Amino acid sequence: MNNKTKYDQFLESKLDQSIAELSRLCAQPSVGAQNWGMVDCADLTANLLRQRGFQVEVISTGGAPVVLAERKGKNNKTLLFYNHYDVQPPEPLDLWISPPFEPTIRDGHLYARGVSDDKGHITSRLHAIDALLDVDGELPCNIKFIIEGEEETSSVHLEEFVKAYAGRLSADACVWEFGGVDHRGVPMQYLGLRGICYVELTVDLLSQDVHSGVGGSIFPNAAWRLVWALNSLKTQDERILIPGFYDHIVPPSERDRQLMEDLPETAEEYRQRYGVDHFLHGLEGGVELRLAEVFQPTCTICGLTSGYQGPGSKTVLPARASAKVDFRLVPNQTPVDIFRKLRAYLDERGFTDVKATMLGGEAPGRTDPNDPFVKLVVDTAEPIYGKPMDIVPMVGGSGPNHIFLETIKVPIVTAGIGHPGSQAHAPNENVDLDLYLKGAKHIVRILKEFADS
Amino acid sequence: MNNKTKYDQFLESKLDQSIAELSRLCAQPSVGAQNWGMVDCADLTANLLRQRGFQVEVISTGGAPVVLAERKGKNNKTLLFYNHYDVQPPEPLDLWISPPFEPTIRDGHLYARGVSDDKGHITSRLHAIDALLDVDGELPCNIKFIIEGEEETSSVHLEEFVKAYAGRLSADACVWEFGGVDHRGVPMQYLGLRGICYVELTVDLLSQDVHSGVGGSIFPNAAWRLVWALNSLKTQDERILIPGFYDHIVPPSERDRQLMEDLPETAEEYRQRYGVDHFLHGLEGGVELRLAEVFQPTCTICGLTSGYQGPGSKTVLPARASAKVDFRLVPNQTPVDIFRKLRAYLDERGFTDVKATMLGGEAPGRTDPNDPFVKLVVDTAEPIYGKPMDIVPMVGGSGPNHIFLETIKVPIVTAGIGHPGSQAHAPNENVDLDLYLKGAKHIVRILKEFADS
Repeated sequence: MNNKTKYDQFLESKLDQSIAELSRLCAQPSVGAQNWGMVDCADLTANLLRQRGFQVEVISTGGAPVVLAERKGKNNKTLLFYNHYDVQPPEPLDLWISPPFEPTIRDGHLYARGVSDDKGHITSRLHAIDALLDVDGELPCNIKFIIEGEEETSSVHLEEFVKAYAGRLSADACVWEFGGVDHRGVPMQYLGLRGICYVELTVDLLSQDVHSGVGGSIFPNAAWRLVWALNSLKTQDERILIPGFYDHIVPPSERDRQLMEDLPETAEEYRQRYGVDHFLHGLEGGVELRLAEVFQPTCTICGLTSGYQGPGSKTVLPARASAKVDFRLVPNQTPVDIFRKLRAYLDERGFTDVKATMLGGEAPGRTDPNDPFVKLVVDTAEPIYGKPMDIVPMVGGSGPNHIFLETIKVPIVTAGIGHPGSQAHAPNENVDLDLYLKGAKHIVRILKEFADS
Repeated sequence: MNNKTKYDQFLESKLDQSIAELSRLCAQPSVGAQNWGMVDCADLTANLLRQRGFQVEVISTGGAPVVLAERKGKNNKTLLFYNHYDVQPPEPLDLWISPPFEPTIRDGHLYARGVSDDKGHITSRLHAIDALLDVDGELPCNIKFIIEGEEETSSVHLEEFVKAYAGRLSADACVWEFGGVDHRGVPMQYLGLRGICYVELTVDLLSQDVHSGVGGSIFPNAAWRLVWALNSLKTQDERILIPGFYDHIVPPSERDRQLMEDLPETAEEYRQRYGVDHFLHGLEGGVELRLAEVFQPTCTICGLTSGYQGPGSKTVLPARASAKVDFRLVPNQTPVDIFRKLRAYLDERGFTDVKATMLGGEAPGRTDPNDPFVKLVVDTAEPIYGKPMDIVPMVGGSGPNHIFLETIKVPIVTAGIGHPGSQAHAPNENVDLDLYLKGAKHIVRILKEFADS
């Protein structure tokens, strides 16, 4: 890489300025769940991009606006950054050492709500762009940003937006909002997310709770109906019984298995952190546990509620019962198809009294680990971190990556500033300033190599 | 009956004094669940009995004390009254028209917490005793009172107490704490209570809730284990699967069936009051519905709790799940036996991870509808209410009557002042002063006839 030293020198010498910019961005609350400061933060974010010569538009969505930005570069290749300016609620406030919207540096870390998720990712990318502009006077390729304001509230308008603006979002590759190192300090490349179909099952049979001495023998019981309906969904050995549930599933490839084998052991950490005394499917650990964790679709009860839940006893027959259930989906399952099959199965089993409502859905989405862009991003990490990235072909969570994969048709990689102690979504969220700098250096190299590739 | 008019004249002319006494008793809070005023109320109750020449003792139990009282009468027969001085909590306070501990008369009713359940029953019986003493100068037979302070909190010390004081409680018959008329104004004789075995099932598998994207495929899920364990207990057609659950059950007799046939229809009331759109076991109404309501043992889920229960979605794998389950028992099931069988069955089905705790138990208890004392009480109602009592051989609820049936070996009847609008356990609890007077008149007749029988 040419001028490597010059880029790094810029990034190092101007780090304080970038951290000051990040602090200003974090001082502006943008709590989506509380509709607090959203438009102000979108405008502030847009101005940061305009200052770098981007053409910027703040576009209404029906929810928080999207910031769309573009600047032409030296050649015709286009890299798209997906980020978000919204943050999680700061509560519980009393657990913060310094106030969540008063960014504070302690021991080489900057603390604030949203500093890692995702404002630090925005400004570290801008810091990399500043270095390229300073050293080269131009960008090596076209750069686009889509910075939404609803990531922490299920990106409810994103799919519609991306489809409507597909032309303006067109790109050759995409860098996702997050990334970083694991507990060993190894940079990680996360290439896929499972899908999700989140359902609420509700049974509502009586107009009020009834004394169990009166109704127990002769009235239908909502809690029992719910238990029987849930039981019909999955066997005790974890086989999901909805007909067609496992149709279309693409199993992990040999390459996936190989990548999973190269990852560190997780079993002992899970035992210690969560008190797990055994794993499902008779697994003990090793690659089979890691494969099952992300390549198995699930049917998880996330919550149950009915009748009396306080201390001691209350003899009541509940009028109503409900369950929250999430299905984690793997390629090529889709939430709409799974929900349709669930409803049909409940009806077929006689559970027409069980109402099902889909509260959220995301399709699964994967980037091919053999994509050349993945290799480029993995390899450019080595000079910065002392080793190339470890590739995680799929993680267990879910997100809107499938929207870009399907609509923009780009490979998506992760590259960022996170670490296991980032406390995203928790009190004392922080970034490690050394990792912040490394993240910016990595972005410079990705852009340079991508432009030349 | 001799001197009928004199007794009634006394009861009517001194009604105001009795209501004043009841008001003083209700002005003394005695909320067991809040441990509020228990000893003061026991002492006040004891003094009411001492004023009538009873030998009274207030006896510690480890919980609220028991008031034990006795006065000799003209012959050697002994009638035992079982009552309680504790009351339900008054909350929600804002729904009371007059404050719960400031007894107030409106429209021929006295309103106060505990005025019907059970303080009005105590004073109406004392009013009857006053009439007998005033007219005859003596009691027609021996009278004993056991007035406990833990009826509203499951009578946890009562069984031990009754066994320890069995000799002093010996009697030939017992009048229970409640009684009254139904919605038609017909006085009702309730002769049996089902038993209960109230169980909490708890599954506790992880040290904390886990993100469902991480744990869903590989960690055991407490909510699923609970659902599967519950499902193993009962089929969708209401067959309880615990081996031996139905052993020893005594079905209703021909006499029980006849008595149930004589009772009014309930199906339409249940449809309207509770919004029931169908009954279990394919029942539509009639005597078969009334028989099933009380002569079928049950397994009722009273409550479910696990994981996330708020609005919208939270993707969490719950560390813990629990259910409240009550089994209503019929003769000759017992709670200890049922609980033992439940535990053995859960273990046999592999649910050793499901903890079962018995939160309360009462055996079923019945008085033979053919007992001569029942006929005496039923018939003596006629001159007061214009018709004899309707006999209900068993009701669906549970209580400590079995303790007296087993230990003191007495027939137990109901005779009291309640009505369907009494609002026991609810705001604006009240007694109808006319029914209060009728209840006292009935007690006079029961005591006279019983002494002469």
